[in-house]
Amino acid sequence: MPSQVSIHPALDGGVKKGEASFNGGTLVCACIDRPVKVAIKGAIAHNHACGCTKCWKPNGAAFSIVAVTPHENVTVLENGDKLQVVDPDALIRRHACNACGVHMYGPVEREHAFKALDFIHPERFQEGGWPEPTFAAFVSSIIESGTPPSAMEGVRSRLNELGLTPYDCLNPTLMDVIATWVAKKAGTLREA
Amino acid sequence: MPSQVSIHPALDGGVKKGEASFNGGTLVCACIDRPVKVAIKGAIAHNHACGCTKCWKPNGAAFSIVAVTPHENVTVLENGDKLQVVDPDALIRRHACNACGVHMYGPVEREHAFKALDFIHPERFQEGGWPEPTFAAFVSSIIESGTPPSAMEGVRSRLNELGLTPYDCLNPTLMDVIATWVAKKAGTLREA
Ligand SMILES: [Zn+2]
Ligand SMILES: [Zn+2]
Repeated sequence: MPSQVSIHPALDGGVKKGEASFNGGTLVCACIDRPVKVAIKGAIAHNHACGCTKCWKPNGAAFSIVAVTPHENVTVLENGDKLQVVDPDALIRRHACNACGVHMYGPVEREHAFKALDFIHPERFQEGGWPEPTFAAFVSSIIESGTPPSAMEGVRSRLNELGLTPYDCLNPTLMDVIATWVAKKAGTLREA
Repeated sequence: MPSQVSIHPALDGGVKKGEASFNGGTLVCACIDRPVKVAIKGAIAHNHACGCTKCWKPNGAAFSIVAVTPHENVTVLENGDKLQVVDPDALIRRHACNACGVHMYGPVEREHAFKALDFIHPERFQEGGWPEPTFAAFVSSIIESGTPPSAMEGVRSRLNELGLTPYDCLNPTLMDVIATWVAKKAGTLREA
């Protein structure tokens, strides 16, 4: 069953491989007037497509493209006065441009496995070459933003076709990282 | 990498197929003296292995075996005075035998996609023939109950070998059911 759902405009035509030389760049929002610019120093990690209802997505896309970077590598360069925290109670404190709505960076400041990491949308890099997304997270959640349940089989098969293995939470690597952090906190972590 | 972790004593030797004729039976706790008995009328559904930290598991098992049945099909037959709710605040109100600790049934009473369903452990049926588990849920969570993170690759490969596709949440079918329920509640559900 072919997917009638747009995964993401930057992915629908096929996933473009990143370049090993990618070493950060500048994220730019969608504003013509006074765009917000944020510098990301160095490599980014865990790039993936995300179906959660909170991540910023371009119009018509069912998924966002989102990766992480250490918070210390994030610097607001220009027009930071336009940034606003979308939901101060969310784990990820997404900083959005209040004019165009693009999320520029989202730090995790709470006690969590992801503390001191910021979530960013690599498609907003003005540079190319950022590492391609390698899986799809929170796939079932796209139903919550209006994808018909009957379309899900096609969506998952299209994601697989694109090399973006679908998960309804994060991928096993990251889920294990979270569980390990929880176990450490609880004093139940065992090493082999 | 072979798994050194016991998935579950009833599964480690291979998953035994259920019988199409299975139509309920009697769940019995582990007590010799005054065992709790609970009748389950009719078929059960969504049987799976579960790695969450709250499901009852036999000693040494990393996973439980757990399925659902409509609440109306559950009847306490004997020694119900020994039943006690493990955690009244949990979504699943697990009723455990206060002598042997076996969970006998766990109703979902809150507003939730699973409302009016009870979670049960088919391995406690005195009858055979219950439908075999068909996937593994909350796999990463077994780290929280003491499985070393380094053993996870072996655990997932063993689960696949047993025909129990591993997921770190529920399987896509159930995750879609939950998302559909949430979307309906939020007024965002769209049909194709
Ligand atoms: Zn903007
Ligand atoms: Zn008992």
